[in-house]
Amino acid sequence: MTDPGAAGSAALGIDIGGTKVAGGVVAPDGTVLATARRATPGSSVRQTEDAIAAVVDELAAAHDGDLVGVGVGAAGWFDRTGDTVLFSPHLAWRNSTLRKDLAVRLQRPLWVGNDADAAAWAEYRYGAARGADLALVITLGTGIGGGIVLDGRLRRGSHGVAGEWGHMRVVPDGRLCACGNRGCWEQYASGNALGQTAREVAHTSPAAAGRLLERVDGQADRLTGEDVARAAADGDSLALELVTEVGVWLGQGIADLAAILDPEVVVIGGAVSQLGDMVLDPARQRLARALPGRGFRPGPRVVVAELGPQAGLVGAADLVRQAVAEGEA
Amino acid sequence: MTDPGAAGSAALGIDIGGTKVAGGVVAPDGTVLATARRATPGSSVRQTEDAIAAVVDELAAAHDGDLVGVGVGAAGWFDRTGDTVLFSPHLAWRNSTLRKDLAVRLQRPLWVGNDADAAAWAEYRYGAARGADLALVITLGTGIGGGIVLDGRLRRGSHGVAGEWGHMRVVPDGRLCACGNRGCWEQYASGNALGQTAREVAHTSPAAAGRLLERVDGQADRLTGEDVARAAADGDSLALELVTEVGVWLGQGIADLAAILDPEVVVIGGAVSQLGDMVLDPARQRLARALPGRGFRPGPRVVVAELGPQAGLVGAADLVRQAVAEGEA
Repeated sequence: MTDPGAAGSAALGIDIGGTKVAGGVVAPDGTVLATARRATPGSSVRQTEDAIAAVVDELAAAHDGDLVGVGVGAAGWFDRTGDTVLFSPHLAWRNSTLRKDLAVRLQRPLWVGNDADAAAWAEYRYGAARGADLALVITLGTGIGGGIVLDGRLRRGSHGVAGEWGHMRVVPDGRLCACGNRGCWEQYASGNALGQTAREVAHTSPAAAGRLLERVDGQADRLTGEDVARAAADGDSLALELVTEVGVWLGQGIADLAAILDPEVVVIGGAVSQLGDMVLDPARQRLARALPGRGFRPGPRVVVAELGPQAGLVGAADLVRQAVAEGEA
Repeated sequence: MTDPGAAGSAALGIDIGGTKVAGGVVAPDGTVLATARRATPGSSVRQTEDAIAAVVDELAAAHDGDLVGVGVGAAGWFDRTGDTVLFSPHLAWRNSTLRKDLAVRLQRPLWVGNDADAAAWAEYRYGAARGADLALVITLGTGIGGGIVLDGRLRRGSHGVAGEWGHMRVVPDGRLCACGNRGCWEQYASGNALGQTAREVAHTSPAAAGRLLERVDGQADRLTGEDVARAAADGDSLALELVTEVGVWLGQGIADLAAILDPEVVVIGGAVSQLGDMVLDPARQRLARALPGRGFRPGPRVVVAELGPQAGLVGAADLVRQAVAEGEA
């Protein structure tokens, strides 16, 4: 391993979420040497690109050495080349040519792709999935993102959109999802799911949800997954029940993914993973009961992600480094 | 391509099902040069091994040239090495050392693995999945089997049991499955599912199921998926409805697999696939409506398998040929 701070070896990683553009200069060993961020105006493609360019300029100016390129992970579905954002539930992009636009503006080698794919790659390179022959990384945020690393390579599917298991249907005629379908997994096992169930309970049984409602001045519709997570951390029993329910749905989905893909390890990242064993214990218990062939076959290890909120930018930086090394950026 | 009948190039393929052991001498181009079969006494591991040995002896004696080895696909879950049958819902094996036993008896290079994996490999090498970078092969028989071919390799997961999507849960608290869980996909989209729904309808509405019941002397419990398939082929309207329902469940599951894996092609094999467009048309329609991100992303092609009932033995033969070439058999 070269000196992590050596000139020419660091790369720039960018993570575009629904509310912010976060960037970092990342050394080959995964160390984040410097960071910068801008707010994302989600309604404008042009302003999002401006924010990306501003973050790149700021970091490049502050960084002494050469940067091998810029890796960009965004909350959208990309085609296989990364040239086109096919679809983004939370941002303005529809068939947008993000990669081409950024190539013109930044004049640097680029990797552009899905943020959860980038985070998955980071966990494989530096975190909880290190050394696994087949790792699934499940990012539990407002929704569910995912990435697949097999035999040392990120696997993005035939059209670039693998790992979107947040939209596998787990309940026929279930909750409506932003993707237009009903019953998607992310409507039951995500931060949004936690908020949604809390709001339903608060509307139906305001008395039972009294302590949760105190957090939002009695306005049930304002309850979010974050409110429930904080209440659970404070020991609120209803909140703990709701978190457990999310954990059970998480474990059931992992059992389904294990039937399909038989991974060595499943890494749980994203904001909801910060609840730790409150959500992982019920998930592991459910998996142990629901894994097809249980008792006769090993199941996957289920572990918490190690890289935290910077996983996306760390992974994107390493992916552009890899693309440059392979002559693909 | 060498002469398919050339000495030293053919391999022996064996397919072990719930009722029979079928074997074939298979040329490198996939041509089946000779076949043999024995009944499988499902309740005895020893007798199944006897039947395998008898088929191998018969075919080897009749075949002029050298055989590079024996590939065995069986309706069970194997560990990654093929050394151990972990679990078989329809056969007697539980942690059985099939590979070791066969190695001792046959004294030939061996590949041992899941029958649906072998069939998937055959479709990739010689059939409907040829040239695909990521192909999922779904075998609709009494249950649902599956195999994954990615970048020219069969992918069996970290523990050897990938592709068991027949046991992903599609209905919470749904129909009981032989695997011990409830709501597995194969309880809704398989030959068994077809029979099960027919029996339920016949019990609940004997009048509506009158024409189906004529086929089994009025005994609803005797109705099988095959009865329904024959009735559908004869134009029976209830049978057609039931086949359509299986097709819709098939399409929904393909949409889920597309969200997870984003394959280029999904190949439908097994006995139920012989219903052709009766089951594939509703499957494709459902997929078109249920694919997450539809309209913004390509979905997989859904096609019928090309190799028919011999896919398993053809694939097993090629897998032992490949294993020998790579020094792994």
